This record gives sequence, structure tokens and C-alpha cells, in this order.
Amino acid sequence: MRAVWLENQILSYRDGLPQPEPLAGEALVKVRLAGICGTDLELVKGYYPFSGIPGHEFVGEIVKAPAEPHREGQRVVGQINITCGRCPACLAARPTHCEKRSVLGIKDRYGAFADYLCLPMKNLIAVPDSVSDDAAVFTEPLAAALEIQEQIRVRSPDRVLVLGAGRLGQLIAQSLVPVDCDLMIVARYKNQQALLASRQIAWIEEHAVRRQAFDIVIEATGSAEGLVLAQRAVRPRGTIVLKSTYTEKENLQINFSSLVVDEITLVGSRCGPFAAALDQLENRLVDPTVLIEKHYYLREASAAFRQAAQPGVLKILFRVAE
Amino acid sequence: MRAVWLENQILSYRDGLPQPEPLAGEALVKVRLAGICGTDLELVKGYYPFSGIPGHEFVGEIVKAPAEPHREGQRVVGQINITCGRCPACLAARPTHCEKRSVLGIKDRYGAFADYLCLPMKNLIAVPDSVSDDAAVFTEPLAAALEIQEQIRVRSPDRVLVLGAGRLGQLIAQSLVPVDCDLMIVARYKNQQALLASRQIAWIEEHAVRRQAFDIVIEATGSAEGLVLAQRAVRPRGTIVLKSTYTEKENLQINFSSLVVDEITLVGSRCGPFAAALDQLENRLVDPTVLIEKHYYLREASAAFRQAAQPGVLKILFRVAE
Repeated sequence: MRAVWLENQILSYRDGLPQPEPLAGEALVKVRLAGICGTDLELVKGYYPFSGIPGHEFVGEIVKAPAEPHREGQRVVGQINITCGRCPACLAARPTHCEKRSVLGIKDRYGAFADYLCLPMKNLIAVPDSVSDDAAVFTEPLAAALEIQEQIRVRSPDRVLVLGAGRLGQLIAQSLVPVDCDLMIVARYKNQQALLASRQIAWIEEHAVRRQAFDIVIEATGSAEGLVLAQRAVRPRGTIVLKSTYTEKENLQINFSSLVVDEITLVGSRCGPFAAALDQLENRLVDPTVLIEKHYYLREASAAFRQAAQPGVLKILFRVAE
Repeated sequence: MRAVWLENQILSYRDGLPQPEPLAGEALVKVRLAGICGTDLELVKGYYPFSGIPGHEFVGEIVKAPAEPHREGQRVVGQINITCGRCPACLAARPTHCEKRSVLGIKDRYGAFADYLCLPMKNLIAVPDSVSDDAAVFTEPLAAALEIQEQIRVRSPDRVLVLGAGRLGQLIAQSLVPVDCDLMIVARYKNQQALLASRQIAWIEEHAVRRQAFDIVIEATGSAEGLVLAQRAVRPRGTIVLKSTYTEKENLQINFSSLVVDEITLVGSRCGPFAAALDQLENRLVDPTVLIEKHYYLREASAAFRQAAQPGVLKILFRVAE
């Protein structure tokens, strides 16, 4: 089997790796497309000590499903948290916070930058025929964008500022258009600005962010400084949603006293609902394919990661099945 | 007029100060009792560059009310934010966040450690006859404790941890007893522990706090380290309420990535509802008088502040009207 391999923060392309064997209740999935995410770039920088095959955004096809053979041939996307089903978090219906979870391509489970991966059957969700591979591969990050609306209520006439117009920021922006809030995106790069403008989404540059002018600020820059800007932009009793994880040492100039004085609410936000994401894709409420910069083959992993790490670059995909 | 005076972080007792004159819509209040709060101690440390008469917790008597003379003689407590009524925050029913506010004894308005103070009539709330001066003087901090329940829902069987059993922590603890949640207080000092035990409120020491064992953690230690402990104690998707403001440089070891991964909600919390606080006092749901360590006269200001700053000391009051 061919795959991208990460070890000691060094990426390589490998062939001849053993094909994984599904455990009880699992399926073997042949990967069609896989996307490079900010978390993958952070893994290479050492955000989490992961060794093996990275990759957690994918669309593929079930090729072996001993427990449910009728699902073989099904085109699927996959929830990335593999859960125990028995810990307090699982029993409290918070499976994405399972205490014993492994996470596809991130923690204790080989990922999607490979010909094949294994996931529990319950993690695999069928993709509607009308949703293309190029769209379906965005299900995981789109679900992460939609998680925001699971956690906080966004509605007209909320003034909402999204910080960052990269991979995740663009999806968050698109997912908020149907909400009919007063939406504004901070976009740094020309291509990101043009993409927003083409969809009639308002954007500004960082220097134009007004102090305390927003009810809700969503921090999706991927860098620690975003939180400082968020704190400046949010109004008293407003809400900041944090979507970024980073390796950087957190020597942030966050003023905790002013979080208290201004009664700010800060909400950490991670994985989201796959069903809702597929629903948005099927109903064409969002179009993530406009974010695609380029398709690479697995053997071009170094070049693919190099491009993905360039400032302003949006989505880089691996075309796994050639 | 006699008063406590703060200038360049130096406290002094002064006599012969001019009695303040109420502006239009204001009343002159003769102070009966006033309490020293953590914020007063922080002002002395330089948390905010305030010069003048500190003090914002008081009970007093209206002696001059040109706009509403029928209220003269009324025993009152006072909301501490003096608001403009016209800024976006005021118009959005968030008066405690008025952009042009002054704050009694904290910002641009002389405070309660004096024979007299002035406040707008609308800030002054009558104290029910059955509530003693010693109880009524706690209305402001009790309202701050009750603000938590205005911001987040606390209910059975939530596991709630209050960090800190000082002035504010004790009031928060008492105010949560009627909620019937699973309540636990981290108490460092013997007198604080004994006070909680006497009211059948469970307490533990800091070292006994289990990791991720609480749905809600309320940080009321008054020190920056409390937030680090709160982050350890809260469960994934749990809530941390921040009640402390501090002068300390915020070189906190807060892991923002794990706030995101664990989807923690952080809620800054400050001033609260006076009516609810007076209601709790009138109905004997809380008894703040057990927190009183000692009454001082204004001329004993240095000794009073010195005792208030001692570790473990609870409420120090000024008996203003002798």
C-alpha cells in the first residue's frame, strides 16, 4: 500500500506498506480523495507527537465490511473520533470527547493519506449521489464549521466577525450566509478576498476592525494573535468562538481581567455534525469546491504539503485512487 | 466630611473634605456601613489608576433627594455603575457595560468610605425593613455572586466546583445551595473551611481536585493561578466562570489549544442583579453576616485595609455613622 508517512516531524512517501486489517465492527475503506488541513500542518510542526500516516479529511469507498457486507461499494465519509462507548463522556452523549478516543490520522490511528484506511462502521456515513467527491472531501471541515451553530445561537441582527479567510474561515463564512446575520470576514490575502467577494460576502482587512463592534467573533486564523484581535473586536457581553489550535507557546497578551469586566464568553469549538454538513452539501447551501487550489498524488506529498503551508493557500487535495 | 482617601496607591484618613453635592437626578446618601472588597485591595495595588474616595459596597440613608423628596429618609443600597442611558450598551439593556460609565469608588466617582456619597436616584434601591444593615451591606457582592446564575444555567445534577472560599467564594457557595446542584468548594484556610462546614457545604483542599471532574468551575480565588486549576478541573464541554480580576501580569500557563480541543466555555462575570440579592437576603436564603470579621471606623482605615489583605480574612466593614 502507498501512503504519506510522518515520523519525527519528517514527511515521506512510502510504498509497500501493509494494507490495514479491519477489526471487529470496522470496515476497510479505499480512499478516493483526501484533504490537507491546518491540523496536518501543525502535526508536522510537532503540535502532537504523531507517527504514522496522517490525514483525516477524506471521501472513499467501503471495500470490505465483514459485519455489514451490504455496505460494500458504498461511497462514504468518516467521523474521525474512534470512541470507546463506555466512558463518562460517551455515556453522556459527548462521543467526540471520549476519554479513550483515537483520532484518524491524529492520535493512535493511521489516517487517510493512504490507499486504504479502517474505521468503525458507525463512523462511516454514506455520501448522497449528487455530492461530488470534490465536495464530499470537505464534509469533516464543514462539520467543524457548523459546530459553531451547535454551540451558540447566531441570528439576525447579530454582528458576526470571522477572523481568518483560510480553509476553515471560508467554510465558516459560507455556512453563516444562510443565517442572515450581519457577517464580516477579516481576509488577509488577495485570493481569499476575491473568493469572498465573488460570493457577495463582505470582507475587511485587519486594520479596519473596529473596537467592540461585534456581538460574535469567530477566531479561525490558526495563529495565537487572532485571539488578541478577537478580544479587541468583541463587544461587552459578546462571544468569542475559538476554532484554532496551535503549537506556538501561548505567551498571549490576553487580558483576563477585561474578559471579566466586559463579561465576555469564550467558546472552544472543534469537531461537528457530519449529517448537517452533508445536508448543506446536498442542498448546495455551501460550495466548498471553490476552495480547491490543486490536486496532488500521494507520491508528491512533499510538494503538496509545501504548497499547503504557503500563506493564503486554500485547499490542497490528494487524489489517492489514480 | 470624613473619608478614606487613596492617591498614588497610598491610603489615608482625611477629615474636612467638602460634602458632595447631588447633581440633577441624584441623591445625597449618608453612609451607614461600607465593606472592603477585593477590588478595593486591588485598587491600592494599582489595578486601576483611581484617585479619591474608594468603596462601593454600602448601605446608607437618603438625606437629600431634590427630584424625589418623598424618598428622603429611605434606607438604601446602590448599584455602582453610573450610566449614560444613550450609548449602544445602554440602549441594548446592558447598562452595566455603558461605554461612558463611571463606577462608584472605582472609576471617576467618589465612593462609599465617607460620610456621604452621591448616586443617581435610579441606582438607589430601598432595603426591606427585615434586612439588617450588616446583611444589606453585602447586597452588591451577593448580586455579583448571583450574576453567575443570570449567565449560565446551573441545575441538578451539575457537579459545580467553586475555587476560593474567600469573601466572594463564600457568597457564591451560599447562593448555590438552593439550586440543589452537586456543590464543592476549594477552601484553603481553616476559618473558611469551618464556615462552610457549619452550613453543611462540602469543601476540599486544592490538592484533592480531580481532573476533569466538574461540569462547571467558578474561579473566585482572586489570583491568576485559579484559572489554571479551573482548566484542570473542568470536564470537556464544561464551563468555567471567571469572577476574579487582578493586577498581576497575565503570564498564565493557559493552554488555549486544549480549550478548543475540549470545547470549554469560559464566561467572564461581574456585576449582578440587586433586586435578586435583596430578595435572597429578605427570604434568609443566604446569610452573609457570618462572613463579618470586624467593624472599623473610617479613621482606622489603615488597620482595616491591613486586616482585609491578610490571607483567609473575610469581610471587613467600616461603621461610618458613629
